[in-house]
Amino acid sequence: MSDNKEFVKDITNIEEDFAKWYTDIVLKADLADYTDTKGCIAIKPYGYAIWENIQKYADEKFKKVGVKNVYMPVLIPEGLLQKEKDHVEGFAPEVAWVTIGGGEDLEERLCIRPTSETMFSTLYSKWLKSWRDLPLVYNQWCNVLRWEKETRPFLRSREFLWQEGHTIHATSKEAEERTMQMLDIYQEVIEELLAIPVLKGRKTPKEQFAGAEATYTVETLMHDGRALQAGTSHYFGQNFTKPFDIKFQNKDGKEEYAYQTSWGISTRLIGAVIMAHGDNRGLKLPPRVAPIQAVIVPVALHKEGVLEKANEIYDTLKDNYRVELDDRDNYSNGYKFNDWEMRGVPVRIEIGPRDIENGVAVLVRRDTAEKITVELDKLNNTLGELLEEIQKNMFNECKKRNEERTSIAKDMEEFERIINEKQGYIKTMWCGDEECENKIKELTGAHSRCIPFEQENISDKCVVCGKEAKHMVVWGRQY
Amino acid sequence: MSDNKEFVKDITNIEEDFAKWYTDIVLKADLADYTDTKGCIAIKPYGYAIWENIQKYADEKFKKVGVKNVYMPVLIPEGLLQKEKDHVEGFAPEVAWVTIGGGEDLEERLCIRPTSETMFSTLYSKWLKSWRDLPLVYNQWCNVLRWEKETRPFLRSREFLWQEGHTIHATSKEAEERTMQMLDIYQEVIEELLAIPVLKGRKTPKEQFAGAEATYTVETLMHDGRALQAGTSHYFGQNFTKPFDIKFQNKDGKEEYAYQTSWGISTRLIGAVIMAHGDNRGLKLPPRVAPIQAVIVPVALHKEGVLEKANEIYDTLKDNYRVELDDRDNYSNGYKFNDWEMRGVPVRIEIGPRDIENGVAVLVRRDTAEKITVELDKLNNTLGELLEEIQKNMFNECKKRNEERTSIAKDMEEFERIINEKQGYIKTMWCGDEECENKIKELTGAHSRCIPFEQENISDKCVVCGKEAKHMVVWGRQY
Repeated sequence: MSDNKEFVKDITNIEEDFAKWYTDIVLKADLADYTDTKGCIAIKPYGYAIWENIQKYADEKFKKVGVKNVYMPVLIPEGLLQKEKDHVEGFAPEVAWVTIGGGEDLEERLCIRPTSETMFSTLYSKWLKSWRDLPLVYNQWCNVLRWEKETRPFLRSREFLWQEGHTIHATSKEAEERTMQMLDIYQEVIEELLAIPVLKGRKTPKEQFAGAEATYTVETLMHDGRALQAGTSHYFGQNFTKPFDIKFQNKDGKEEYAYQTSWGISTRLIGAVIMAHGDNRGLKLPPRVAPIQAVIVPVALHKEGVLEKANEIYDTLKDNYRVELDDRDNYSNGYKFNDWEMRGVPVRIEIGPRDIENGVAVLVRRDTAEKITVELDKLNNTLGELLEEIQKNMFNECKKRNEERTSIAKDMEEFERIINEKQGYIKTMWCGDEECENKIKELTGAHSRCIPFEQENISDKCVVCGKEAKHMVVWGRQY
Repeated sequence: MSDNKEFVKDITNIEEDFAKWYTDIVLKADLADYTDTKGCIAIKPYGYAIWENIQKYADEKFKKVGVKNVYMPVLIPEGLLQKEKDHVEGFAPEVAWVTIGGGEDLEERLCIRPTSETMFSTLYSKWLKSWRDLPLVYNQWCNVLRWEKETRPFLRSREFLWQEGHTIHATSKEAEERTMQMLDIYQEVIEELLAIPVLKGRKTPKEQFAGAEATYTVETLMHDGRALQAGTSHYFGQNFTKPFDIKFQNKDGKEEYAYQTSWGISTRLIGAVIMAHGDNRGLKLPPRVAPIQAVIVPVALHKEGVLEKANEIYDTLKDNYRVELDDRDNYSNGYKFNDWEMRGVPVRIEIGPRDIENGVAVLVRRDTAEKITVELDKLNNTLGELLEEIQKNMFNECKKRNEERTSIAKDMEEFERIINEKQGYIKTMWCGDEECENKIKELTGAHSRCIPFEQENISDKCVVCGKEAKHMVVWGRQY
């Protein structure tokens, strides 16, 4: 038992120092580690397996709506990056430049892609000829690099993995529909797979992607009440197709510029899973994305028949679930229980001599700590039902918390009082002026999350200036 | 019909100029395109889908033998690269250096990984504590960059995609076994999936990977008789574990250095598929790796019921095969037939008014041009059998060609005569001296492919110096 206590002591209390708790989980649950490359992490097998599950789930959904995967060069010549004014202003300060290749100074330096609008646009301009070629709906799963000053594993790494979809269309209507369609898919990935409810809306112009006409977002709320932007989908209009000369011959034989979108989700979602669901026992993984959905821990491992029965159970379950058998003989049961809880495995299956005698096993839920005794011949079905139940419960718990942490503010006094009492979403009316948006940030540290698609009429007046309100905006401090 | 002729004229004759034929196929079959980043290509959907099929097939096999995927930083600090002498000598001349990040000159420059032995080794040194942690069998699917002077799409791109496995073990025996196990898997991927027979063996010391103790290879032969190294697996012994201080406490409590391997296959395999199987009609894809296994071309598209029936067939087949329906109305049948042949689709399914009347469809094989009339209710099964038959036939055709293009040379006169008559593998005996190996390269342009595992005793004397022979070596001009 001394093992257990020491073990839990290793992890910072989640209410005392959430940031330190987060780092503890990343390192101790073996999700990632720091490297000699400043600001860049190594994603370890357990962390990478989460990413693989996200990729698989999202990629299948992408392919069903006609997305085709491609791969573009990681290096972008400086000249390309500079073709769209807002884009280069937004990204140039945070890129890494390759200046030497093959032992020689380069004539034109190359940046490591921070995002690939410019590369896709250049090639689309080359490939697009006729309306018959449209739409082009391409995506790549790749690494990108942004020279962040302050980094945090998964949440803000200099290098991260993501997918970036880039599409061109004959009409603005079709491009806008694609922007929304991909945002809807992001919602499905984040809600169905990661069990995190999202808030959907449009970013204010200030928070838009560099070069976009409109940026749409799925926002999430973490355990500590801070917000995290979990995925974005951009409508570019012709902002890139004009400078990059992406034209096509329409049905009447006339040349037109195409309309463009881009959209992305990243390994940041792993950070979201940790921070949305975790608790003082450690990581808590939704079953659908968990690399290990159930772990079998034989109790009294050395007793005759126990390991054998554990192996039998493993064989029964392994084709239907991602299951592991912990047959380590150099750790106590207590240590193992804590270890798997800390690693967030949704269900622990305990099997000991008395259970074998009774023909049962004990299932322990990670989300509620509830213990359920199950007859061995029902284990296979029960486990499946239980995993789905856990998935649902985790989503509902998050949703409940979001509701508790969502407030309405009608003036700045109220806004400041609320945000100092509790972190979370704050809904206000807004006149649409960037000045008022800046003021809120100055006074409270909160950024606008989005202008939600589901608008409510809280009042007629902007929360800052009192002038006529245009939108309801949700605000919050952010990661 | 004029369409057809023009179309075929577009592609260089394979016997006249193989290199130009290759480039034509890459571009016209829409596999890849050149980009503004010199020496780097954009892999288009049709090319990338081949890579996805290779990835899926290989990754499943990897996972079955305990390989775990991870992701390491793309940037490696110069200091790390320099820790192993041979390794840095081999790779430093061909790396790209990042010297500026976030607007500032970096204190230590960072190279874009040409391969990640140094990064894995640094982290293994941090992670490895006890014999209980071993083996560590990690792999990453990622991009790498090597500043090649002369590039060719897929075969030798500055940036390419690959997987690199890096493992550490408690004993040299276990590490050597892993090296072989992965080589065997490469053989399976290349032979079973890509229908290309391989020659397996050990590289001569001259051709070894920079820093390796031994490099094992799977070699392949292309249509023009040139060889292509298709995958390699390296045994490092303790060459990296000592400079990188990768130690563990063994069962007796003593510290030991671990033993190491690495192994990789890359998008070069797409080049291999093109060059091993293609012909004057264009690309020829083995069914198991083909993004489109069968294409349905309705003949007399405008006639009543034809498109309807074609759609019906599509619906019948789409869950079992990767199938496409070509309902374009702006191309002739002839153009379409040529187009799909050029794109290497293994089976074309023609359906016209008379076929519908007779309740049949016509299957046309890409590999033999044979036409097979099939009753519609047997189409589903017949297609599956036919695809397997094509897969087998393509492998056998390659094997036959390899045999025809394999010769034996007992002296250099014979060697030179043969290699000037026909490209291919040449078997000779070899004394083991690098000088003799260099001489062969000078005189004939051939490199040693490998010392095959299956040795034959051709003679007792080295083909160059006439001294006592140690091994039979296979030579060939290479890509």
